[in-house]
Amino acid sequence: MTKTHIVHAFDKDLEKVKALLLEMGGLVENQLSLSVRAVVSRDAVLGEKVRKTDRRINELEQKINEKSVRLLALRQPMAQDLRIIVAVMKAASNLERIGDYAKNVAKRSSVLARFPPVGSAANTLARMNDLVLQMIVDVLDAFIGNDVPAAEDVRLRDEDVDLMHNSLFRELLTYMMEDPRNISPCMHLLFIAKNIERSGDHIVQIAEQIHYLVEGKFPEQRRPKGDRTSTMVVEMTREN
Amino acid sequence: MTKTHIVHAFDKDLEKVKALLLEMGGLVENQLSLSVRAVVSRDAVLGEKVRKTDRRINELEQKINEKSVRLLALRQPMAQDLRIIVAVMKAASNLERIGDYAKNVAKRSSVLARFPPVGSAANTLARMNDLVLQMIVDVLDAFIGNDVPAAEDVRLRDEDVDLMHNSLFRELLTYMMEDPRNISPCMHLLFIAKNIERSGDHIVQIAEQIHYLVEGKFPEQRRPKGDRTSTMVVEMTREN
Repeated sequence: MTKTHIVHAFDKDLEKVKALLLEMGGLVENQLSLSVRAVVSRDAVLGEKVRKTDRRINELEQKINEKSVRLLALRQPMAQDLRIIVAVMKAASNLERIGDYAKNVAKRSSVLARFPPVGSAANTLARMNDLVLQMIVDVLDAFIGNDVPAAEDVRLRDEDVDLMHNSLFRELLTYMMEDPRNISPCMHLLFIAKNIERSGDHIVQIAEQIHYLVEGKFPEQRRPKGDRTSTMVVEMTREN
Repeated sequence: MTKTHIVHAFDKDLEKVKALLLEMGGLVENQLSLSVRAVVSRDAVLGEKVRKTDRRINELEQKINEKSVRLLALRQPMAQDLRIIVAVMKAASNLERIGDYAKNVAKRSSVLARFPPVGSAANTLARMNDLVLQMIVDVLDAFIGNDVPAAEDVRLRDEDVDLMHNSLFRELLTYMMEDPRNISPCMHLLFIAKNIERSGDHIVQIAEQIHYLVEGKFPEQRRPKGDRTSTMVVEMTREN
């Protein structure tokens, strides 16, 4: 076998693994979209469907890992080819986690369907989720195109998600204080919001992998972080 | 260079990477322990110390990744040697996430120090955390000893963490309903409990990596999962 043959075989295998990553990304994006739709439309059946599909995501991650390890063993790639395989495995692990979050949102949607809606919180959630969904699409494009500026753009956009998370957190805590009957549903909405916010963080990690695979190092500048919910307190108003 | 030389050099490098993983594990265990102690003892200064140490954990993960990639490139290991490097990188990523959770717990401890204690919730948190801390110690031992039965034991013990999480979740929701002044502190306690529960999940993933690196495949049997908080609702009592 000539050297050219080996190179072609490696590129072909690598394309296959990347295609699996894209397939996984599309599935994860769809799952997260449907899970939040189940919350907004109070659709317990849709929630159940999302929960069942999560298995396919996990299987895809395992397939990507197996193929990547085989590529490492058989083709013994160097430099950027090696980095890209490591980055693919790490990105698959981030996508799997987002899939887990979608599954958790779907679970909570079934509970929420039993309560009256709490203000317009579900719609705010959906808007926040739309930002994250677009980040998934864009980070995968950037990954396939080795596009560092596009990855950096995605990374910076996560701050908008954090800011929406802050205001939703405050809103939900206020609803809880106004009426104790809101406590159970708001609790689940708070955890759903957190799941979406964490999904954004995982996309940031994928964006940072793109820096690494193209440039061999991670971005030096720390991204601006907007999430303040871990130190947030909503004071009691006089009425309570 | 003879083949024996190459093998020895690989083993030496591998030992170095494993030592870094142990160092990282010890640091993460300490961080999680201190963060919960900051909650229990209402010690904002200790919380701040934990937050500042998180950077060292991230640096260790990056060092492990760099050394692992270099090992893959220079030594081009096969079979179990290859799997162990992949497993080390994955375990480092799990440990880094637990470090993030500890940092988040520490952040919330500063807020909680400003509120009166809520029942005995902090002590329950500490007991739950003790289970997780022991799981970290045991999973690292199992990793170094390639000990599948020990890893399986750790994996199964996570159910106890889930069960404690359920009962704490219910307790905190009840405190919130009893008095709206409890809502802000209980919110933070709920997220802290969730962070500890998720840390347990990450240790389970490390335990599963041990199966993979020794046997070349993941455990087939699904572990018993006890976490029911995503579908939990606490009904209003007549007094509310």
